[in-house]
Amino acid sequence: MASRYLDLDTVKFLLYNVHDLDGVLAQERFKDYDRASVDLFLNAVSDFSDKELFPYFQEMDARPAHFEDGEVHVHPQVTQYMKKAGEMGLAAALFDHEVGGLQMPNCVVTAAAYIQESANNHLPGYIGLTFGAAELILHFGNEHLKKTYVPNMLSGAWNGTMCLTEPQAGSSLSDIVTSAEPDGEHYLISGQKIFISGGDYKGVENVVHLVLARIKGAPAGTKGISLFVVPKHRPDGDGQLVFNDVNTVGDFQKMGQRGYCTTHLSFGDKKECRGWLVGEPHQGLKYMFLMMNGARIAVGRGAAAIAMAAYRASLAYAKERPQGRKLTSTGKKDVSEAQTLIINHPDVKRMLLTQKVIVEGALSLVLLSAKYQDLSLTHPEESERKKYHYLLELLTPVAKTYPSEKGLESVSNGVQVLGGYGYCSDFILQQYYRDIRIFSIYEGTTGIQSMDLLGRKVTMDQGVALTHLAGEMGKTIKEAMGEDSLKSFAGVLAGKTDLMKKVLNYLMGYAGKGNYERFLADATVFMDFFGNILIGWLWLDMSLHANKALSDGATKHSAAFYKSKIHAMRFYYTYELPKSEASAAILLNTSDLTVSVDEGLFE
Amino acid sequence: MASRYLDLDTVKFLLYNVHDLDGVLAQERFKDYDRASVDLFLNAVSDFSDKELFPYFQEMDARPAHFEDGEVHVHPQVTQYMKKAGEMGLAAALFDHEVGGLQMPNCVVTAAAYIQESANNHLPGYIGLTFGAAELILHFGNEHLKKTYVPNMLSGAWNGTMCLTEPQAGSSLSDIVTSAEPDGEHYLISGQKIFISGGDYKGVENVVHLVLARIKGAPAGTKGISLFVVPKHRPDGDGQLVFNDVNTVGDFQKMGQRGYCTTHLSFGDKKECRGWLVGEPHQGLKYMFLMMNGARIAVGRGAAAIAMAAYRASLAYAKERPQGRKLTSTGKKDVSEAQTLIINHPDVKRMLLTQKVIVEGALSLVLLSAKYQDLSLTHPEESERKKYHYLLELLTPVAKTYPSEKGLESVSNGVQVLGGYGYCSDFILQQYYRDIRIFSIYEGTTGIQSMDLLGRKVTMDQGVALTHLAGEMGKTIKEAMGEDSLKSFAGVLAGKTDLMKKVLNYLMGYAGKGNYERFLADATVFMDFFGNILIGWLWLDMSLHANKALSDGATKHSAAFYKSKIHAMRFYYTYELPKSEASAAILLNTSDLTVSVDEGLFE
Repeated sequence: MASRYLDLDTVKFLLYNVHDLDGVLAQERFKDYDRASVDLFLNAVSDFSDKELFPYFQEMDARPAHFEDGEVHVHPQVTQYMKKAGEMGLAAALFDHEVGGLQMPNCVVTAAAYIQESANNHLPGYIGLTFGAAELILHFGNEHLKKTYVPNMLSGAWNGTMCLTEPQAGSSLSDIVTSAEPDGEHYLISGQKIFISGGDYKGVENVVHLVLARIKGAPAGTKGISLFVVPKHRPDGDGQLVFNDVNTVGDFQKMGQRGYCTTHLSFGDKKECRGWLVGEPHQGLKYMFLMMNGARIAVGRGAAAIAMAAYRASLAYAKERPQGRKLTSTGKKDVSEAQTLIINHPDVKRMLLTQKVIVEGALSLVLLSAKYQDLSLTHPEESERKKYHYLLELLTPVAKTYPSEKGLESVSNGVQVLGGYGYCSDFILQQYYRDIRIFSIYEGTTGIQSMDLLGRKVTMDQGVALTHLAGEMGKTIKEAMGEDSLKSFAGVLAGKTDLMKKVLNYLMGYAGKGNYERFLADATVFMDFFGNILIGWLWLDMSLHANKALSDGATKHSAAFYKSKIHAMRFYYTYELPKSEASAAILLNTSDLTVSVDEGLFE
Repeated sequence: MASRYLDLDTVKFLLYNVHDLDGVLAQERFKDYDRASVDLFLNAVSDFSDKELFPYFQEMDARPAHFEDGEVHVHPQVTQYMKKAGEMGLAAALFDHEVGGLQMPNCVVTAAAYIQESANNHLPGYIGLTFGAAELILHFGNEHLKKTYVPNMLSGAWNGTMCLTEPQAGSSLSDIVTSAEPDGEHYLISGQKIFISGGDYKGVENVVHLVLARIKGAPAGTKGISLFVVPKHRPDGDGQLVFNDVNTVGDFQKMGQRGYCTTHLSFGDKKECRGWLVGEPHQGLKYMFLMMNGARIAVGRGAAAIAMAAYRASLAYAKERPQGRKLTSTGKKDVSEAQTLIINHPDVKRMLLTQKVIVEGALSLVLLSAKYQDLSLTHPEESERKKYHYLLELLTPVAKTYPSEKGLESVSNGVQVLGGYGYCSDFILQQYYRDIRIFSIYEGTTGIQSMDLLGRKVTMDQGVALTHLAGEMGKTIKEAMGEDSLKSFAGVLAGKTDLMKKVLNYLMGYAGKGNYERFLADATVFMDFFGNILIGWLWLDMSLHANKALSDGATKHSAAFYKSKIHAMRFYYTYELPKSEASAAILLNTSDLTVSVDEGLFE
């Protein structure tokens, strides 16, 4: 069952079989669910996406969010979507039953969000950020804040946002200057925030901003940042909403994701903007970053979903469009033959398979990360929870980056499959191409994720996260060694893990000498290298499950379905995995070309 | 002297020093020129671009060409540009003095077009296609056609086009069905053409279409295609223009190059569309392809120019934008320090240097191809002309593809340097990103260029073209071996040429067995491999010239300028050239993954 934007079968195969949903559902927290109820839920989300998301996708691009008469105007479907998604419980799906949530596993909620994002990546962000803001309040806020804000957020009536970026600071959060001055039970907030997704728009009843700001007199840098709830309208004692001096200055016009507004907000122009401290003073960044894993995986998930949609669209086109002829054994074409479908040209197959391995590899990584999160929170044994926490920490920057960076390459292949039509506005591919480009920038650029991976995650606690990952990969390798048809690929992957050790040993040498700048200079290349090998592991794992299904005579999917996974794995090992050799060669370089200070470098 | 869109110094260094302009100017045909007059010409083109092209670049995107009331509306600067470029002789720069041309070398004209395209890639195409159409008439048309059409085209008053693509045929020209029926001295033309750049627009006096069509009863396939001049308005005996039943059906809306119209034309709706045969019947495709080398290099040139402009824009931003701090030797940042400029972060340097090596490598390749064309036409010795012809044939698909494919990667790095701003419509980077995406599709997609490279150019006449290229590369390697600072790089490049032989031997094995489909299945990977090594050669060559200038104490450019070329070469050999190892590993694969016929491959 695959549409022009989604292959739901693959989502289910990965979630149920490859990543063992039953193992997650076995945890006490999820006792209300079984595979059948999850299946019903995902089918409902898929129907919902067909009806409420996909039909508006191109329209939202053609009629983008924009600032006019002092307000941001968005497509009317935004309000409709918030309402219906609220009714379905999508914003509250992860939360406890007691606060009105569905108490679902993150891996299921991730699959549900992915399905929606493949249908229309402009809409789910509204609910996603609302969920993220509500989560912060629930985790760290007092009872008053919880009671005042959360129910209206979870119903989809009020929008939530995360306000981090400021014009002068960009990615450098230590330079935030938005200020908070104590004023009785609340604070007076003053400052500018930019790039606020879903930040404000006409027709929404209220917006609840989670704002990073600096209490007057706080220490410099990230240690002086606190977190505040700053509503656009504050509920007064009588339940009336009073304007809280949160002003919309404009909406950034972007080359893609044009239905998803990106606002510029100004707090306290009239010194009447009240904010309520969340948790303790000066702990704001720590709180925000506890939610950041989720936000980063959500970015990777969105990019993975766009790449999926682009793959399906270009695949559908390749199966319909006749053009050219196959080469005969004389190296010529026989023009008396009818034209062949373009899917029969090897170069088109190569482009489609490149997409397939990136798309499904990215999805597998995102679901795995979500599963690790589930187990890190719910596994009964502490040592296991710790293990999964380390694995989650390690994979998060990769789950954000691989789908964003390789997804872009994947979508570009999709455009190319359509030729000139791929570039035309009447065809959907160019929109995916524009939409996905922001994902390697959102929530910390690829450069920042890469420094997080190499500079923090790989090295933390004497490299224990990497040890756990090697253990997981080792299990797959061992199992695949036992299968004749997979043995050689398992051997290749084992070689790659050795290569990774070699590269890390080399790079750690710089850190050992206190040359951190050089240690991290090629972090982005390392990210590419690491992601390439990681996805190689996930493809081998997928093949093991496909192989098993074939030998078990499983009928959940067709034999062709399972075989295609094994074919794609072989493609990955032949056309993608060799790239890690080049990355390793680059990483092992002994030069100083991007660190050396040379004024005229770019003349 | 570098602006926010162009580094004119590098253009001149490549043209004058690296590619030895004097050697071209020494040919009899160019005796009216010397380096000083060329310098004046390029400076004039640069001034012209500052004034007449760059200021309209973002505006042409914001107010795109569009179809309304039966006509295509373009930005008013199009007409202005055509006129002024006509006055400067830009459309006629390559032509003989006797037809009103400037009789300039192609490498100089290429540099001039590149300068314009870096300023605004939406405009030069109008004149470029007009030149191409005029060139076809001058080469193959009779005196009547030449007299009737060419002068008005070269003055910029009449636009010219090339009409190849049809809706049902796409890249498969053998399936063209536009028909031509003899009707006295002319033919009656009937059919549809799509994707016609500069195809028609409001305000242009006349458009002269060069149309591929099939004379009734002609053989099937490419051997039955003829070339016709089909004006929108035909001059009657009295010099009046009569409408010639060439109808504009629409204008394709595109994600980029939005100021450059892309029309859908319908010929002969009322059976009153007259066409005049150019040259002999059934020779149309041959004629068109004689011009195709130029058209393909022009596409590569345009992509290279966009990549240049994006590099300059992101470099300027990186030099102005403070953000974050450098890592100290404890691996931390000192927040009491002022923020540093982002150009000081190694990852930003890496992105900028990646751009630099692609941008300048692409430009070098384009200029070299143009120079080969000059020498293939003007060298006094036939054997030399032949050699340069072979080299031109070999490099053409690469000169089209490397700048398009790697240029896209380069521009994407430029977007990333700006972070979130790179994605915003107020910043220029996103426009370059959208604009450049079409170049790997124009005039034969990357897949088609790659099959041309591997399937025709590498193998033609027992591989003589490759032998000549090996000879040229060998000279550079030998010379670099004599320089202590370059010796090691020369050794690396020599190794790469051996690797290329190994790869080709392997692939030729499939051709030898008549398995052409498998031989060409990975042609696109081969293109990437070949381009990567070729640009490695060009960077070594550039370093030799920079080295020489430094040791000669040359003062044309600063020492920093020359040193930056050597730094960039080292960067290329460290961060780009190793990728050829991965490509070789892929190309040497023994599988059949994109050739095998398997229905369920993409499930």
